[in-house]
Amino acid sequence: MLCLRVTLRRGEAVPPGYAEIVTTIRTDRGYAGELDAADQLAGFRDRFVRDDESLIYLDGNSLGPLPIATQSRIAEVVREEWGAGLVRSWAGWIELPRRAGDLIGQHLVGAAPGQVAVCDSTTINLYKLASAALDARPGRSVIVTDDDNFPTDRYVLAGIAAQRGCELRMIRTGMNDGVSEDALRAAVDERTAVVSLSHVAYRSGALADMAQITGIAHDAGALMLWDLCHSVGAVPVELDAAGADLAVGCTYKYVNAGPGAPAFLYVRSELQDSMRQPVWGWFGQRDQFAMGPGYDPAPGIERFLTGTPQIIGIAAVQEGARLLGEAGMGRLRAKGVALTELLIGLADEWLAPHGFTVASPRDSARRGAHVTLHHRDAWQLSQALIKAGIVGDYRTPDRLRLGPAPICTRFTDVWDALDALRRIAGDRSYAGLAAERGRVI
Amino acid sequence: MLCLRVTLRRGEAVPPGYAEIVTTIRTDRGYAGELDAADQLAGFRDRFVRDDESLIYLDGNSLGPLPIATQSRIAEVVREEWGAGLVRSWAGWIELPRRAGDLIGQHLVGAAPGQVAVCDSTTINLYKLASAALDARPGRSVIVTDDDNFPTDRYVLAGIAAQRGCELRMIRTGMNDGVSEDALRAAVDERTAVVSLSHVAYRSGALADMAQITGIAHDAGALMLWDLCHSVGAVPVELDAAGADLAVGCTYKYVNAGPGAPAFLYVRSELQDSMRQPVWGWFGQRDQFAMGPGYDPAPGIERFLTGTPQIIGIAAVQEGARLLGEAGMGRLRAKGVALTELLIGLADEWLAPHGFTVASPRDSARRGAHVTLHHRDAWQLSQALIKAGIVGDYRTPDRLRLGPAPICTRFTDVWDALDALRRIAGDRSYAGLAAERGRVI
Repeated sequence: MLCLRVTLRRGEAVPPGYAEIVTTIRTDRGYAGELDAADQLAGFRDRFVRDDESLIYLDGNSLGPLPIATQSRIAEVVREEWGAGLVRSWAGWIELPRRAGDLIGQHLVGAAPGQVAVCDSTTINLYKLASAALDARPGRSVIVTDDDNFPTDRYVLAGIAAQRGCELRMIRTGMNDGVSEDALRAAVDERTAVVSLSHVAYRSGALADMAQITGIAHDAGALMLWDLCHSVGAVPVELDAAGADLAVGCTYKYVNAGPGAPAFLYVRSELQDSMRQPVWGWFGQRDQFAMGPGYDPAPGIERFLTGTPQIIGIAAVQEGARLLGEAGMGRLRAKGVALTELLIGLADEWLAPHGFTVASPRDSARRGAHVTLHHRDAWQLSQALIKAGIVGDYRTPDRLRLGPAPICTRFTDVWDALDALRRIAGDRSYAGLAAERGRVI
Repeated sequence: MLCLRVTLRRGEAVPPGYAEIVTTIRTDRGYAGELDAADQLAGFRDRFVRDDESLIYLDGNSLGPLPIATQSRIAEVVREEWGAGLVRSWAGWIELPRRAGDLIGQHLVGAAPGQVAVCDSTTINLYKLASAALDARPGRSVIVTDDDNFPTDRYVLAGIAAQRGCELRMIRTGMNDGVSEDALRAAVDERTAVVSLSHVAYRSGALADMAQITGIAHDAGALMLWDLCHSVGAVPVELDAAGADLAVGCTYKYVNAGPGAPAFLYVRSELQDSMRQPVWGWFGQRDQFAMGPGYDPAPGIERFLTGTPQIIGIAAVQEGARLLGEAGMGRLRAKGVALTELLIGLADEWLAPHGFTVASPRDSARRGAHVTLHHRDAWQLSQALIKAGIVGDYRTPDRLRLGPAPICTRFTDVWDALDALRRIAGDRSYAGLAAERGRVI
């Protein structure tokens, strides 16, 4: 019998039906089955395409599975809107970046309408908004981020700093934790133009306190730019309430919109008309179809658009956001906490003797929806798991990352995965696998 | 009886089977039917989804129709690669930007392997390459383009110029013609870093002599950046042979890859390793999955990638490029010339008396695959055509643009469209339509 340390976010109520699972856990499979039986979200598993019933997929934090509704919707957009409607369908498509953005704002990131647009990739959106933030803070030339931020974030910010002769200030962060408030307070000053951090850390799953960190950035007079890739759809996000200025996020993880689906960006409404992004494309133009001589940025969130939007991808984003909205971020968060608590509890009990340590925050209030385990042979273990029909993922240098996406993962999936992992670790069957690392995404 | 002035590009042979149609045309519908009967590409019409047999679609230059193979391929990528393969499919997806790029290089733009990548949008790619070109020509601070270039090109270049304190020099170009070699020669000098022009002008359809214009840019020591949006898949493009440095292009027009499908970029192989683009994303990183601390651009074309590629869209690009490759750019060009010659001939005969003038080059060697007609009431006429089941498009300020995509348009479609237009113009039924312009794309 292990103690289950469910700590919900401040002020967050335990949803009805979950009260009984927040006390203790047992390590027998029957217990995981009981949790599944009590799971209010259990039915959502059937809303996804399942090709192989025996597969345990704990990588929805890398690429989310395919919702059945999305499969149908993509076919409809292709056949009816493109195939039959042809160019005439632009009458409706033209509004999709904003419409899909508003859906994300409403269901997933706590943003009133008109502040979110679906467009480009996370990388491009980060480039646009970080550049715009520097322009919006003239006289300041420091960008602050942390050294365990996701690679594309660090690279993009380094590129902007190099281009503009700015300083990129890196907060040192352990691989197991997020950025501490104290470290951020020490890093920002009157030269800081923008602070750019991930809400949930890609490696450890550490969850930042958005309101508090945004406040620290604001106290220094800086703008706050959040990367929501590993939090959107996994934990409740309240951009408006936290006073956030800017945010970007992807949709192919917990939003389940498919490989390379378009990303989104958020710009707080009061900031929009005073900000300008560097890529002056025709979809950001005020009177786009006048095709006039000079660039005059559109009022509102549209000025942050660039080229022609990816229509099929945006349709998939809409379906993904609707499905999460139907499940409700409160219930998804409660289940995410329970799933990761079970995972950590079983790891402590079964895997610690085999050289594993938990490399994610143990306080669920500081943790997103994935758990990372440290093990010297994490690469081979991740490959052995895949051979056993369990898909998690490897992260450098020695991490096994397991993401039981709340909308479609069973408690028994977590139990079975950890059970397999203890067998693989115990018989050392992984030891024969090549140590050379392949591609991981 | 009208003279059909088919003038192929220098050194371009008239493909077999077309010899008999390059002499004269008649204005009777039977003649158009004879051309269809002799059309070697006629069968390709059945490779596209047709929802409404009565619709005449002359707007493939804005959004190409849906190939049947693409519909199947998208369904397969969604169901099998995403739905069943899940994150494991990245093993193959990771190579798609280059693979699809090589297909475009081989079939459509005359580029040896390793020089084209499918990624982002035209707008973003133009931003990346124009910025990289400026960096590659230190000490030079002038960007040259023309005042009738496509809006997003002019805006993006203006944004870069504003950001960097460069001069954007605009060549004055009439709305009916492309940039003349003389005008370009007068515009470039030792301060010019990059010349950015469209190969086929979006409004007039004017086709530039790529080799000659590239040579003029090179003579001034500048890099040449081509926008191929209105030429790729419509006219033969020979980037390598022309000595072009850089190019971008879209895939949702003549490549038929669907609304908002990803664009492509070309960087001549000798230039790649010395160039750096401004958006330092993780897909441009040398050892991407090491996720290391610093950005180190990949060798080759991959350094021009940014964020996670749009997999579904790239699959559609592959299908589109293959289909055009099967038809062959030589045959597509010959048919494109014949279609536009017929269109111009009928316009001269039937529409000139109603106030229309041809606003595209009359010399087919200087014209892409679309024809633009000038008329004071072009907007209402375009709306009246749509009501009659004929989709072309309106372009500011007073142009009707008709694009008979060679791969799927019949000569009788052109005849019927022009016949409808002369009736609409003759009975002035369009005059009652609202003059207020709506959205056009």
